[in-house]
Amino acid sequence: MDQKTISVNSALKAWQQQVDRTGRFISELSDEQLLNEIAPGKNRGVYLVGHLAAIHDVLPEILGLGKKTYPELRAIFLDAPDRTIQDIPAVSELRKIWPIVHDRLKNEFAKMPVDDWFKRHESMTDEDFEKDPTRNKLSVLLNRTNHLAYHFGQIRLLK
Amino acid sequence: MDQKTISVNSALKAWQQQVDRTGRFISELSDEQLLNEIAPGKNRGVYLVGHLAAIHDVLPEILGLGKKTYPELRAIFLDAPDRTIQDIPAVSELRKIWPIVHDRLKNEFAKMPVDDWFKRHESMTDEDFEKDPTRNKLSVLLNRTNHLAYHFGQIRLLK
Repeated sequence: MDQKTISVNSALKAWQQQVDRTGRFISELSDEQLLNEIAPGKNRGVYLVGHLAAIHDVLPEILGLGKKTYPELRAIFLDAPDRTIQDIPAVSELRKIWPIVHDRLKNEFAKMPVDDWFKRHESMTDEDFEKDPTRNKLSVLLNRTNHLAYHFGQIRLLK
Repeated sequence: MDQKTISVNSALKAWQQQVDRTGRFISELSDEQLLNEIAPGKNRGVYLVGHLAAIHDVLPEILGLGKKTYPELRAIFLDAPDRTIQDIPAVSELRKIWPIVHDRLKNEFAKMPVDDWFKRHESMTDEDFEKDPTRNKLSVLLNRTNHLAYHFGQIRLLK
């Protein structure tokens, strides 16, 4: 295995570890626990689950792998803070969305040629990419992994 | 720049972003805020700062870059949970340790040849490494970055 393949595999492994760990933890929480705030006055668990599902559902678009599956999540979990929108998806609904979003990514990532990870992501121009080649699809994956870990640290407080 | 160099640079950039972000946030918190719990009954901010400093102080040993600087942190912030040891370093002391630990890593990482990141880390055997070449120094860096993001998500709740 060459070094670029090893580095992509390491990044994919780290991503999948965080996804699996978070998914497992969420599935062990009750709906009631997920409706609690992670700390007094802070986001509720249900909001963070929706927020992560929404941001990961956009990943295929940024990585050039196709359209998002749940466009309706954006307004609720990305554009609006928690508790500003009354009518949000039920916990049971988010529990169904979570594996669909993440299984899709797992399948797409498994098929993706290693070299594609070093191409520019779809939300930046060729010109910017020439200036900084680290702003590639791999760096999007690393950043999303850290973003997931960040919120998982908060979701963990629900138990 | 070849792809293995780009991937190492992306990982280093993601690490440094989390370090800088966390360091900046901690420096903006008062000592009183850091002595609060991140959520009722959970770790105090001061413990998490010590925990991160302790675990990052061990990084040079795992990466083959030399001995830790603060061996005394281990018993307090890695082996023992929060509030089980009364006599822990003052917040002011941890504020001094933080940049020393992280500036050292920044300097060492800048000097490290790209190929070294693909060598096995010091806490595993040659045999295990042969079975799984993704368990290299780069994967240690990725895992520590996620660990940092995880706890930063919690420290953020102090404000």
